[in-house]
Amino acid sequence: MNATTRNKTTIAADPDLPTITIVREFDAPPARVFRAWTEPELVAKWLGPKSVGMRIDHWDATTGGSYRYAATREDEVIATFYGSFHEVRSPSRMVQTFTYEGVPDGVSLETITFEDLGNGRTRVTALSVVDNMEARDMVLASGMETGVIEGYEKLDELLAE
Amino acid sequence: MNATTRNKTTIAADPDLPTITIVREFDAPPARVFRAWTEPELVAKWLGPKSVGMRIDHWDATTGGSYRYAATREDEVIATFYGSFHEVRSPSRMVQTFTYEGVPDGVSLETITFEDLGNGRTRVTALSVVDNMEARDMVLASGMETGVIEGYEKLDELLAE
Repeated sequence: MNATTRNKTTIAADPDLPTITIVREFDAPPARVFRAWTEPELVAKWLGPKSVGMRIDHWDATTGGSYRYAATREDEVIATFYGSFHEVRSPSRMVQTFTYEGVPDGVSLETITFEDLGNGRTRVTALSVVDNMEARDMVLASGMETGVIEGYEKLDELLAE
Repeated sequence: MNATTRNKTTIAADPDLPTITIVREFDAPPARVFRAWTEPELVAKWLGPKSVGMRIDHWDATTGGSYRYAATREDEVIATFYGSFHEVRSPSRMVQTFTYEGVPDGVSLETITFEDLGNGRTRVTALSVVDNMEARDMVLASGMETGVIEGYEKLDELLAE
């Protein structure tokens, strides 16, 4: 059984709160998983769906830093995303903002925790909140699952290298 | 009737969402009010309750920038706050994160809009969200109203200069 078969991604919308919680385990210790989330040359290798390329324009994963990246297809930019790193607390927690530039007034706040499961394994929980239910439901309807699930599959491969 | 008597501050918690909405009007046009929110030497003059001093350690109100400040009493630091500026869209909108360091895992996302009411007046709406109701209720119980209301009274005076 390989890492992707063993480690399922769960994506859940809260019935009462404008939040989405994504949980995924990885076959690597927290420090190694955390590095894959913070070092831009690693992030570029796994973030997003398999059908698009990732061009990182800026990625300063430190408390008070910020990021900006574009999804590309045949060198054409198809979507741009940006945000700020509110806190980067290595190797256990990151809090960041996120906007898809196509919906410039939509901003989510994401808290990502890296939990040490022992035996070289890590549980990552990404809790995302927006300020109204309609915006949360728009995020869910955007097809983000594909990007999340496929991105984590690429991350499995990267962590196995 | 002076500005503070005319312009009431309303602070409302949503019954269903983990949000707080603060609305306040000011006797100055948006560009001027926006400047008071973004220029650190102006922010230092009005932010927070009247009983404490404001020491701004860092304030870069640009998209991707960040801030950090301390509330002081007789030159002793009594509380420190920090966050990131997700977007600064002059003169109509700012989105920023906020943490009181005494509760390091508590992070709110604030969207502040500056609406032109004409006749040199501006309505400021600050919508703040956290990812659970308990955290929102803790913010409400923290005595933040005093700081908000008194800060805006100081801002009235600053805008009248």
